[in-house]
Amino acid sequence: MTRINNKKRRVCFVINSRANYARIKSVLMEMQRRNDCEIQIVVGASGLLFRFGSVVDVIKRDGFHVDREVYSVVEGNEPIVMAKTTGLAILELSQVFSELKPDIVVTVADRHETIATAISASYMNIMVAHTQGGEITGSIDESVRHACTKLAHLHFPATQSAYENIIQMGEDKKRVYMTGCPSLDFIDENKSKDLNNILDKYLMNPKSIQDLDFLLVLFHADTQHYLEVSNATREILNSIKEIDLPTIWLWPNADAGTDFISKELRKFRETNPSSKIQFVRNFSPEEYVTVLNHTKCIIGNSSSGIRESSRIGTPSITVGSRQSGREIAENVILLNEIDSDNLKNAIIRQIKHGKYNPSNLYGDGRAGKRIAEILCTTEISIDKKFVSLN
Amino acid sequence: MTRINNKKRRVCFVINSRANYARIKSVLMEMQRRNDCEIQIVVGASGLLFRFGSVVDVIKRDGFHVDREVYSVVEGNEPIVMAKTTGLAILELSQVFSELKPDIVVTVADRHETIATAISASYMNIMVAHTQGGEITGSIDESVRHACTKLAHLHFPATQSAYENIIQMGEDKKRVYMTGCPSLDFIDENKSKDLNNILDKYLMNPKSIQDLDFLLVLFHADTQHYLEVSNATREILNSIKEIDLPTIWLWPNADAGTDFISKELRKFRETNPSSKIQFVRNFSPEEYVTVLNHTKCIIGNSSSGIRESSRIGTPSITVGSRQSGREIAENVILLNEIDSDNLKNAIIRQIKHGKYNPSNLYGDGRAGKRIAEILCTTEISIDKKFVSLN
Amino acid sequence: MTRINNKKRRVCFVINSRANYARIKSVLMEMQRRNDCEIQIVVGASGLLFRFGSVVDVIKRDGFHVDREVYSVVEGNEPIVMAKTTGLAILELSQVFSELKPDIVVTVADRHETIATAISASYMNIMVAHTQGGEITGSIDESVRHACTKLAHLHFPATQSAYENIIQMGEDKKRVYMTGCPSLDFIDENKSKDLNNILDKYLMNPKSIQDLDFLLVLFHADTQHYLEVSNATREILNSIKEIDLPTIWLWPNADAGTDFISKELRKFRETNPSSKIQFVRNFSPEEYVTVLNHTKCIIGNSSSGIRESSRIGTPSITVGSRQSGREIAENVILLNEIDSDNLKNAIIRQIKHGKYNPSNLYGDGRAGKRIAEILCTTEISIDKKFVSLN
Amino acid sequence: MTRINNKKRRVCFVINSRANYARIKSVLMEMQRRNDCEIQIVVGASGLLFRFGSVVDVIKRDGFHVDREVYSVVEGNEPIVMAKTTGLAILELSQVFSELKPDIVVTVADRHETIATAISASYMNIMVAHTQGGEITGSIDESVRHACTKLAHLHFPATQSAYENIIQMGEDKKRVYMTGCPSLDFIDENKSKDLNNILDKYLMNPKSIQDLDFLLVLFHADTQHYLEVSNATREILNSIKEIDLPTIWLWPNADAGTDFISKELRKFRETNPSSKIQFVRNFSPEEYVTVLNHTKCIIGNSSSGIRESSRIGTPSITVGSRQSGREIAENVILLNEIDSDNLKNAIIRQIKHGKYNPSNLYGDGRAGKRIAEILCTTEISIDKKFVSLN
Repeated sequence: MTRINNKKRRVCFVINSRANYARIKSVLMEMQRRNDCEIQIVVGASGLLFRFGSVVDVIKRDGFHVDREVYSVVEGNEPIVMAKTTGLAILELSQVFSELKPDIVVTVADRHETIATAISASYMNIMVAHTQGGEITGSIDESVRHACTKLAHLHFPATQSAYENIIQMGEDKKRVYMTGCPSLDFIDENKSKDLNNILDKYLMNPKSIQDLDFLLVLFHADTQHYLEVSNATREILNSIKEIDLPTIWLWPNADAGTDFISKELRKFRETNPSSKIQFVRNFSPEEYVTVLNHTKCIIGNSSSGIRESSRIGTPSITVGSRQSGREIAENVILLNEIDSDNLKNAIIRQIKHGKYNPSNLYGDGRAGKRIAEILCTTEISIDKKFVSLN
Repeated sequence: MTRINNKKRRVCFVINSRANYARIKSVLMEMQRRNDCEIQIVVGASGLLFRFGSVVDVIKRDGFHVDREVYSVVEGNEPIVMAKTTGLAILELSQVFSELKPDIVVTVADRHETIATAISASYMNIMVAHTQGGEITGSIDESVRHACTKLAHLHFPATQSAYENIIQMGEDKKRVYMTGCPSLDFIDENKSKDLNNILDKYLMNPKSIQDLDFLLVLFHADTQHYLEVSNATREILNSIKEIDLPTIWLWPNADAGTDFISKELRKFRETNPSSKIQFVRNFSPEEYVTVLNHTKCIIGNSSSGIRESSRIGTPSITVGSRQSGREIAENVILLNEIDSDNLKNAIIRQIKHGKYNPSNLYGDGRAGKRIAEILCTTEISIDKKFVSLN
Repeated sequence: MTRINNKKRRVCFVINSRANYARIKSVLMEMQRRNDCEIQIVVGASGLLFRFGSVVDVIKRDGFHVDREVYSVVEGNEPIVMAKTTGLAILELSQVFSELKPDIVVTVADRHETIATAISASYMNIMVAHTQGGEITGSIDESVRHACTKLAHLHFPATQSAYENIIQMGEDKKRVYMTGCPSLDFIDENKSKDLNNILDKYLMNPKSIQDLDFLLVLFHADTQHYLEVSNATREILNSIKEIDLPTIWLWPNADAGTDFISKELRKFRETNPSSKIQFVRNFSPEEYVTVLNHTKCIIGNSSSGIRESSRIGTPSITVGSRQSGREIAENVILLNEIDSDNLKNAIIRQIKHGKYNPSNLYGDGRAGKRIAEILCTTEISIDKKFVSLN
Repeated sequence: MTRINNKKRRVCFVINSRANYARIKSVLMEMQRRNDCEIQIVVGASGLLFRFGSVVDVIKRDGFHVDREVYSVVEGNEPIVMAKTTGLAILELSQVFSELKPDIVVTVADRHETIATAISASYMNIMVAHTQGGEITGSIDESVRHACTKLAHLHFPATQSAYENIIQMGEDKKRVYMTGCPSLDFIDENKSKDLNNILDKYLMNPKSIQDLDFLLVLFHADTQHYLEVSNATREILNSIKEIDLPTIWLWPNADAGTDFISKELRKFRETNPSSKIQFVRNFSPEEYVTVLNHTKCIIGNSSSGIRESSRIGTPSITVGSRQSGREIAENVILLNEIDSDNLKNAIIRQIKHGKYNPSNLYGDGRAGKRIAEILCTTEISIDKKFVSLN
């Protein structure tokens, strides 16, 4: 692998899911605007799949060139497929990197594709930049996120305590930049946009929601407790049913246990044909912000219920262990146990409370600009050594 | 994947190379002796290959049952094959774990197979124990070792400062055990064994060494600087040639750049048919200790030049960046630059000095016993969360 | 890989889908009854997936022990995922065969998993038996089926002309046995069973069909024309809608283009909430026979519309190119073009005609017995050479 | 995967070994000369490995642009690694084809990479052209070759009876072209070139051969009898040793059993330091022709001992079962049993006989021209159906 000289710096972004894209898009836009670097975009894993909203099409509609599409999701409902998907992604991404010859590879957050990217690039002596390191949560994501930190050469944490955690882990201060999370960069300009256009585009029955209060649900399988998700899904469905408000339910990620959720959702849909829940596969990052701004309450265990919501002040209820330990602003109610009665009461409380004051906990809306600047100007280096604090 | 009840705890060891085996064998022996746990052994990667000494045969001769043999080395001399080997190993090991259903998987040190093991097991919700975490070195091993720490649930560091580094990285103190390195457990009983039997077994021309001073060389490719190894190999060969002592040269590991070393070795052998260097693919861990005790000086960049040597007091010269940063005892001379003149002088100095006082830096010879006890009795749990020191 | 002596012959069946199982089950039952061979069962690919009916659960309920479960479906809607699924299946199956050490591996029909099985086993010097070779159809299955014939050592064709085609391809007559297709072995005993139990078990609204005429649809993507399946699906839906009979629609196989079908089915379901079409993921082989016996007409491009139907005399309409060239009995109307008007007319014609006389074209109901006998007694040999007919 | 319009036809060649390249090079040269098609070259498997002569470097030196390099050899000495290599090659090649978007993929002969190429391309609806189909030999290559025929859409057999065998297998006459083998295209212009330049370039001790008679050995593992190759290698070495002529021994292919051969060769070399055998990793196709023309006898089981030799009239001894059944000209002595005495006698007989009359059995030297013409002008189509001869 020889570097081609007299070329612009090449920065490669690997985007593997709906959430990945939302959390890196403002960086991509800023990089494209600057034009002193070449952007390379690789879309893989659930980012290519219709079941998860074909994010690749959203990326293309947003005007980005996709350099490679890499199918790597091994299908199944057991934890083994997450390991296999990681292995397959490494096989594929290493080949892609050998062809694209990036100077820096950017990997987002904490999923299996994130560590597949970090492993492929670091073994190939390519500098790795990592966003959203240092945060604390539950599930296997917690371990994988920190492992990615230890493989990466450049860090873009979203919060101050995440920044400190990365330093504690022995990373070199000069390589850790407190930038905030790019997912918050869209909020100010998008939160007040017209909701009706979005509802018309995605819902079978948009009328049912227009001008009405509605709830938003995102509930993913906790891969370390994936056998319990059927029950949890039923509890959430029951509480929503009793609240009896129109509800938008976003389809879950591709993970061990997702089939259990899907099965419950289908069963509910079939036995409750007149239910007010409508299912959506995917919003664009900007559309999602608008929806999040208009909902009376977001319910589930997606990090967006903590992260994006904090900056809007959307009332949020985060359930179960998947986000356990994550820093929260005052808008979030945590329910470790998923029980329909408690959940119903919490929803009622949040609806009554209404919007909270916005918080800057996860960013001030300028993360993309900062990250782009660093990616375009930082010294390229793969040297790395544990920094002892003693 | 259902757990079978009323069964002994199952502890699975994944052994991928000569070095892996030497550093876990005393644990295996102790576990087998105790008999309150079931040992499962998976041999993979270069542990199966003739080119690297067919360690699998040594393991079987030592009386262990090998449960699975997993071919995963993708051949080639470029860094990409390390990534591909990791990906393939994850595909294979996840299948193996789904069949063997271990309660704990033990992964050793810092190679690509080490992280492949850690990823497969942790995504499958299996508890991961890691040995030799927290040490500091050069090369990609440095990053991979710490990433494994962040994936593992149980830690067996070899030194006090490694212990502290693991704690600093946010691991829970209750899960970190300062045990020392099992590779030192063989030293006391083996160092004074008869060398001649070993020479007879492995050398084409054992007579040339018997009763004579000899040098020992282990030189691996630094995968982050693999294009420079040809030159480094030649410098080492030249210094050895000038010293003109009988020399045992152990074949390098399977890594990017290994072909460059092999090529230089073959070229040297063909153009120096009367050279006193003899090449050996593999010793058993015990035999290696005997050889290490008798050599006048060990030269190269293997961690055994630092680790096992420290406890014997063998004069050692560690060259290049591969071990850069690793804790050393007084027996080691470090040469960052690999230059035949400097190296020759260092060899002469070490030969003159002779044996150093033994050090306990890397262990007191009872690591295997301690680790086995913990593996057999610790609570099985995959819960894990970053521990902030602030 | 060493053979263990003094052991019963081991015959390994690799089952990858609903259709695979239906076409080999009577052999498995016969082998289990005989008890002079050890059966090994590997379930992989879509045979493990909920989306395709979790055939593995059916197999276990039928009393068989499943030796290995192998996840190998790479998810996606493009042809590339069929290739990747084949590659991944070879990686997995070769490991499985190295552990199970079968004397014979049985591979069924013509899908990507079929050739993955044949390649893995034949490269590992294991005898391969192949069912349903020599038939002629459209799609990539046509090529793959014949490639499997050229890799296999033992052949169990279903029809006389398939037998002759295998001989023509240069296979040794002594290794080709005209057995008929095992999928027909269940027909006589199951066709007249009570339909209502089955409807109750699988349909949301079984009442809608009980005591009424109903249609049965199985429509798979033709992987060589997968971009045209959306349109074809709509044409079929429209014709069914106009006929306005209760209809059971079986979910399609996992193939490139399947997403296009699913998308049309979901769209139809959502825009026709009062439609009489009900979707079913999976019947057991026996249940399927009962359904096939009671339907007024089977429509689509599944080989069961030709094969199993022939022995019952079920009126059948086979559309498109996927089965083009396959031998048919008089019960089948072929429609190369998929056009809702023509299709509607053909359905009306078939309903009017009613049951045809049963045909023995694909078997006499004793294939399982014959195949089991040969598998248990044939000489184990991997010798093979093209037999010239000149 | 969208086709780009207004572009030249793209023909992709997958080259996986020394032998692959020799047998397709004249086609590549002709295609490059014509310039009405775009050539794409993918080099994979042992074509990238130093152990097997780094054919990729030869290809580049010959002035061809290599579009992709794909590492796919899973290392090991057991049959399982051939299966795994096939699986990995399919994963990689399918990705490559999705990027290069060829109109035709050309696959050569009968190795595991040949069928990996054929499977990847045919599942991706890309037209497959296959050279050297229809020949009869021993080993697993026999089955794989015919399986490739059944997957390919265009056939370029080398001999008349191979042509007839392909037709017999049910291929459409319009798609089968009797072209001869491109490996013979270099013979006339290269056979009389100066041998000494070549010897100087490759041999440690070229003087030992110059102006002297010498033998040439190519001996590969028969993968179906790979446990017997150690013994066979020793028999060949012993016969050569007794003949006591200078000998060039070409390193074997990467296959199960190759380690056994290597081990014997190394052992021999070390115990016979004054042996007249010299080992060579790789000649260019043209150099090989010159060597073949000057040797007194070629010994082993490479097809070049039958194919290329026939056109030169080089005395040849083909041993064992690997080529069993292949058409031979009068220059070949077949020895099924590998016994040093018989072999020695055969070598003496062949040396006495000297050159045979050249034969056109495998081609007239214009295959490359014919194949290039067809590749550039044939109609692109993936339609395919078994043609019955009844």
